[in-house]
Amino acid sequence: MDYRELSTPALAIDLDVLERNLDRMAAYCREHGLRLRPHTKTHKTLEVSRMQLARGAVGLTVAKAGEAEVMAGAGPDEILVAYPLFGNDKLRRVAALARERRVFVSLDNELTAENLSRAATEAGVVFGVLVEFNSGLGRCGLEPGPACCALARRIMKLQGLAFRGLMTYPGNIWGTAEERKREAGHVAERIERAMEEFRRDGIAVEIVSGGSTPSAFLSHEIAGLTEIRPGTYVYNDANTLDQGACELADCAARVVATIVSTAVPGRAIIDAGSKTLSSDARRASRGIGYGYIVEAPDAPIVKLNEEHGYVDATRSSHQFRVGEVVTVIPNHVCTCVNMHDEVFVHRRGKVEGSWQVAARGKIR
Amino acid sequence: MDYRELSTPALAIDLDVLERNLDRMAAYCREHGLRLRPHTKTHKTLEVSRMQLARGAVGLTVAKAGEAEVMAGAGPDEILVAYPLFGNDKLRRVAALARERRVFVSLDNELTAENLSRAATEAGVVFGVLVEFNSGLGRCGLEPGPACCALARRIMKLQGLAFRGLMTYPGNIWGTAEERKREAGHVAERIERAMEEFRRDGIAVEIVSGGSTPSAFLSHEIAGLTEIRPGTYVYNDANTLDQGACELADCAARVVATIVSTAVPGRAIIDAGSKTLSSDARRASRGIGYGYIVEAPDAPIVKLNEEHGYVDATRSSHQFRVGEVVTVIPNHVCTCVNMHDEVFVHRRGKVEGSWQVAARGKIR
Repeated sequence: MDYRELSTPALAIDLDVLERNLDRMAAYCREHGLRLRPHTKTHKTLEVSRMQLARGAVGLTVAKAGEAEVMAGAGPDEILVAYPLFGNDKLRRVAALARERRVFVSLDNELTAENLSRAATEAGVVFGVLVEFNSGLGRCGLEPGPACCALARRIMKLQGLAFRGLMTYPGNIWGTAEERKREAGHVAERIERAMEEFRRDGIAVEIVSGGSTPSAFLSHEIAGLTEIRPGTYVYNDANTLDQGACELADCAARVVATIVSTAVPGRAIIDAGSKTLSSDARRASRGIGYGYIVEAPDAPIVKLNEEHGYVDATRSSHQFRVGEVVTVIPNHVCTCVNMHDEVFVHRRGKVEGSWQVAARGKIR
Repeated sequence: MDYRELSTPALAIDLDVLERNLDRMAAYCREHGLRLRPHTKTHKTLEVSRMQLARGAVGLTVAKAGEAEVMAGAGPDEILVAYPLFGNDKLRRVAALARERRVFVSLDNELTAENLSRAATEAGVVFGVLVEFNSGLGRCGLEPGPACCALARRIMKLQGLAFRGLMTYPGNIWGTAEERKREAGHVAERIERAMEEFRRDGIAVEIVSGGSTPSAFLSHEIAGLTEIRPGTYVYNDANTLDQGACELADCAARVVATIVSTAVPGRAIIDAGSKTLSSDARRASRGIGYGYIVEAPDAPIVKLNEEHGYVDATRSSHQFRVGEVVTVIPNHVCTCVNMHDEVFVHRRGKVEGSWQVAARGKIR
């Protein structure tokens, strides 16, 4: 069956493109001596995790205890929970996983470290801990400088914790190639500022973890990084495309949708709305709307309701008709994947099967 | 256990508020002789469907075949699929349901009617059909006038279909009380225009189905409506609140979240991001951001990543601290509920159990 014949809406993955994306990132990291610890939040499947590990990933990254539990099934030697876990239930679950493999947790405050230490001690395990610092995004993380060293010293004193290094999420490396290069320079400066303080204090920093998809292939220019955690690169999406951080041919994931109404003049309605694509906006400047229609790139999806995508057909040469199938590259593939219980995989259009999105909806 | 002690993030429903909302809408419809066919897309649970039917709802509304299959479990006499179904798989599944209960489908074009007729004939069932017309939103639906009558006449000739009336989604009734009242007038005019044509043609129109939550309590002023299909009223949300279409005390659903980081000055990070709240924007003018923090309404959630809500604490008197629990009224409760496998129900704070969000993710 061709993937365009699937019951719609459906999320379809091109295996050739996926494998090429995985190979390219693995080769880049090998070439530059960077360790790859991919974030599994994008694909949320055991199948892709195994493909990443088979290509040399040192471990897997997750954000939630529930994601860690699922991804343990892919057999990684190491799991990094790149999220400041709070809550005894979650800490206990992650501690249970640390009995069988190395588990790292990132954090940016003493209270979280103390709770983590208690959970480790109760379970008789040791967590590797990365201190999160803010390299410019302003989300989580301490200011590079003395505060990071003070937290590291506190961690070194707590039972069940081993300070292993630093982590940052450089989500501020975003935009055109030029904007990304400039911001990568700022991130490098902030890493250097953090490291300087650690050198002065004589604290060994084994890991400096960074990396995102828009910044991934700039990582060798960011001095100090020892590893990266990109996620989106496996499938890519319209936001990555808009930034010029991938080509159309690198977009492995498409939502297959059907035109269900053309009753309103100038408009076509697809059966993929926010419950299928997610309502994440197109962030980069090149495009507007809620996804890139491959068959009619000049027809933007201007609005979403849960089950309706509003296509503006007024400036498109494409003549939409009821029953027609189109394929849409989502704006943000991570949130799109999270909407789906399964993804369908194909090679050159032929459906080979489906994969369960096993870590979908693991919010705790 | 108090619901603020749940492992976070979690979606919690106040049963007293839910029951009051259900009672109020049921009483309003009884008082005005309107039939209530609530849209189940908001709650997606069998439990609330049963509560709606027990309070006199004539049936249930859904958008997808998968939702219809789930909601059949609540035992309604009638299911309306208020969506122009396309695809043989979906038509067959809905036809199977029509063996045991009355099933209505709305549509706005001949091809969809023909496909539906074929599925009905193959299954040996009859679908009630509502012709969808556009009352101003410009999503689906024919222009009120001759086109609606022509489609109705075509439906009357097709085997397995019974023309039953008209349907519209008045999503354009939105905004302040004044704006909503004005737009309700426009909708009433467009209903009258549609009906006029049917009267002229001598075609009986048994059902005129409209209604949404922001327009619900204006329905008695919209001449011609025989029934309404509100969904959001069961829980309400920040968008409903912003419009003045409910009070804070009518908001039954809150996301319980924990502050996980305050490392960046002026900022607090909650463990509820777009994977928990959905990234649907605040539409009405009164507020900005991605949800209403009940404990600190002056601290907007200015940005979401999947697992992070960025709270701007710079203009708030509230002092956020790591580990603190807050409760958030989501912008759009329907898309928020769809993110959750279960909701926790409580009375006056005490958790009584959880309900499976059985129709979550039913995109087909």
